[in-house]
Amino acid sequence: MKLEKWENITEWPLTALSLLFIGVYAWQILAQPQGAWYAAADWVMNALWVVFAADYVISMILAPHKWEWFKKHLFDLAVVLLPMVRPLRVLRVLTALNALHRTGGMALRGRIVMYVVASVVMLVLIGSLAILDAERFAPGARITSFGKALWWAFVTITTVGYGDYTPVTVTGRLLAVALMVAGIALIGVITATLASWIVDEVSADEKRATEITQDQVEAVSKKLDALEQKLDRLNQSTPTNG
Amino acid sequence: MKLEKWENITEWPLTALSLLFIGVYAWQILAQPQGAWYAAADWVMNALWVVFAADYVISMILAPHKWEWFKKHLFDLAVVLLPMVRPLRVLRVLTALNALHRTGGMALRGRIVMYVVASVVMLVLIGSLAILDAERFAPGARITSFGKALWWAFVTITTVGYGDYTPVTVTGRLLAVALMVAGIALIGVITATLASWIVDEVSADEKRATEITQDQVEAVSKKLDALEQKLDRLNQSTPTNG
Amino acid sequence: MKLEKWENITEWPLTALSLLFIGVYAWQILAQPQGAWYAAADWVMNALWVVFAADYVISMILAPHKWEWFKKHLFDLAVVLLPMVRPLRVLRVLTALNALHRTGGMALRGRIVMYVVASVVMLVLIGSLAILDAERFAPGARITSFGKALWWAFVTITTVGYGDYTPVTVTGRLLAVALMVAGIALIGVITATLASWIVDEVSADEKRATEITQDQVEAVSKKLDALEQKLDRLNQSTPTNG
Amino acid sequence: MKLEKWENITEWPLTALSLLFIGVYAWQILAQPQGAWYAAADWVMNALWVVFAADYVISMILAPHKWEWFKKHLFDLAVVLLPMVRPLRVLRVLTALNALHRTGGMALRGRIVMYVVASVVMLVLIGSLAILDAERFAPGARITSFGKALWWAFVTITTVGYGDYTPVTVTGRLLAVALMVAGIALIGVITATLASWIVDEVSADEKRATEITQDQVEAVSKKLDALEQKLDRLNQSTPTNG
Repeated sequence: MKLEKWENITEWPLTALSLLFIGVYAWQILAQPQGAWYAAADWVMNALWVVFAADYVISMILAPHKWEWFKKHLFDLAVVLLPMVRPLRVLRVLTALNALHRTGGMALRGRIVMYVVASVVMLVLIGSLAILDAERFAPGARITSFGKALWWAFVTITTVGYGDYTPVTVTGRLLAVALMVAGIALIGVITATLASWIVDEVSADEKRATEITQDQVEAVSKKLDALEQKLDRLNQSTPTNG
Repeated sequence: MKLEKWENITEWPLTALSLLFIGVYAWQILAQPQGAWYAAADWVMNALWVVFAADYVISMILAPHKWEWFKKHLFDLAVVLLPMVRPLRVLRVLTALNALHRTGGMALRGRIVMYVVASVVMLVLIGSLAILDAERFAPGARITSFGKALWWAFVTITTVGYGDYTPVTVTGRLLAVALMVAGIALIGVITATLASWIVDEVSADEKRATEITQDQVEAVSKKLDALEQKLDRLNQSTPTNG
Repeated sequence: MKLEKWENITEWPLTALSLLFIGVYAWQILAQPQGAWYAAADWVMNALWVVFAADYVISMILAPHKWEWFKKHLFDLAVVLLPMVRPLRVLRVLTALNALHRTGGMALRGRIVMYVVASVVMLVLIGSLAILDAERFAPGARITSFGKALWWAFVTITTVGYGDYTPVTVTGRLLAVALMVAGIALIGVITATLASWIVDEVSADEKRATEITQDQVEAVSKKLDALEQKLDRLNQSTPTNG
Repeated sequence: MKLEKWENITEWPLTALSLLFIGVYAWQILAQPQGAWYAAADWVMNALWVVFAADYVISMILAPHKWEWFKKHLFDLAVVLLPMVRPLRVLRVLTALNALHRTGGMALRGRIVMYVVASVVMLVLIGSLAILDAERFAPGARITSFGKALWWAFVTITTVGYGDYTPVTVTGRLLAVALMVAGIALIGVITATLASWIVDEVSADEKRATEITQDQVEAVSKKLDALEQKLDRLNQSTPTNG
């Protein structure tokens, strides 16, 4: 079987499993199940992790250029190895949506905007769940409910940083750094997309006025052809003259 | 009646009603009227809401491609459905001002700057009023006067986020997230507009030196026409010769 | 006398007076002179204000198109009318330095960088002095020394906003909003200048390969001229033939 | 000996010494050695400083245009003169890595990204060490461990600025301003690189459609050559006719 076919077949099932993973993760953190329920949730998440790892291994085996594939999928490796960032796997949803938007320049920007919005929503959601899990029972922690965690995630990803809620654990602070970096990237992507759009809009009119198009060169070329035909006629008439 | 005509007729009245809406909203929050006065203010705002909803329904009925129109006016639908963001309707003022500025590249940037300034002023003003309304009587709230609310709105929209005043209610935090997102967009638009301007200014001189214009192609074209005329003269003279 | 001549003559004296203004302003705030000294400092600053106002009036009288001049110098009018922002007048120093840098694209970016650095230094300095003056004796104020004021100004203009020192007076908060807006502009200008530079560097190689230059069009034009001369020779030879 | 040769020879040894410098610096701050150990660490750092100063002097002597070299290496002079920023010398590592990436447009962006990542890691690390050294024993200081210092450095360089940990000493605040400025530059560089990439991607397709290439001009030029040959044949045939 080819890698492409494997990816086509597994795309939607894996996305569904990713969403299931997030669902179970959220339920484990928000509902705080005890005993058997907690164990069941843990078991489901471990099983899903095995599925994700198997997909990684199978994809690599199917890849024609294994080293190239490995270098291009370092993030996937990290996702498989670091259980903490595994929920990010759900970003695969975006890859699927991608196929809908592959037509020229505007589409690129459209895709970027979609990516950014989806990534931010995902990061804020998962970041809130993860920080709540990390901080909740830490001594001196202030992020002790999902509402507070969500609020903190928005304050952090927008780089506003009020400081009314701040993480106090090492895990919490690592998550915070990830959100901050995402925030910087977010500002960068939004600004860059806007800049590209404005540059295009502003230069659209100017270009029409100053740039010469293929049509104009074609017109010049046709005139030259006409000249050549006339010269050919001359060349035909003058020899008889000679 | 056509949609365009309806929009032309209702543009200014609706803008005036929007400003009235904000005025009544501000008066209700700042003056804190009691009894009959409060009821009157509420009645005016409900009446205005009915007018806005009617405009939405009529516009949709008049639109030739209803589904297209619906997709393009999702924000308007939100404005009609969510009484909270209804004051944003006043941004229609900007649409009206638009007509004054539709001439080429510089105008686009001019319009963007105008939009940004007007949106920021509006967002800060309405955000301050709304946050004051949401927080004022909440236990533990620090945003308890319009001055403090204004200060908080500026600190938030610029993403400075001192944290000396922070919202504690759910509504307040939703408003804060909206202002933060607006702040990110604000930075993006300012930077992008500046970038477009600098790119243009820097490339202006270069272009003059390296780009060929339509004038130059025209000159080449004229030379070809002259050549053709001369060839025609030759063709005329040689046949008599043949 | 012409406006241009007046500006050339007054440029350096007015810049010197602006620096003197800032010096006296700083001395008044930092040394907190008492009695006669305070009165003297105040007198000097009032006198300087009269000089600035006179320059504004004379410049307007000398301007050929008064309304155009008025619209282009609204900031100057504000500087004359609002004693608080008068120190900003020292930004005239930048205008003087400008003359040194008027050669092409790189120069524009060089000028922008210079403007930004100079404006930030100025804004931070004057902002620190002004906030110290506004806050120092306010009840509950934390910005009570020049060191703290400088620190606060940097924390604000970079939009970091720790919140360890925040203004509590209305004047202080207006100054803070000005610094925040300056910070947003600062980020915008730096990013935009960098973007322009990167876009230029990246596209430099590409352009050389795909764009046709005036030289190439000239070469085509010369070939056409040669063709015309040969046709002329033909035209001269054929009539004798007819 | 030529300057270039000297730089080639000393590049790696100096980079190694820079890393050693940072290592000793970090050990001195984190392990807080006492007595003889402290003196030894200090002696090593002073010796390394002498080596760096010697490299500066020798490079200048070897430089063909000393004044040009001096102006281009003001930062190096600062590094030699200001012991505090001497650790930044390790940024020389980047210069070495540079050589690997000098092929066209994408490479420029690749290099920029590498620079940014390396600089941020370096700045956060060295900034954390330096702030810890400056603050640790200050009265009222909150940055009292390396973990807290690292957390503070990330919060500052991303301009989030929670304010849960803030410097209270003059040295600490100078370091903070440096990190803030680095943060602004960081946002700027990331955004600008993204903008350049998006602008390129979006315009790639458009260019192919509207721009005329050298190939097309060449085609026109060849047609003209063909015309000239035919005219030459005519000129050759008509004289025999005359």
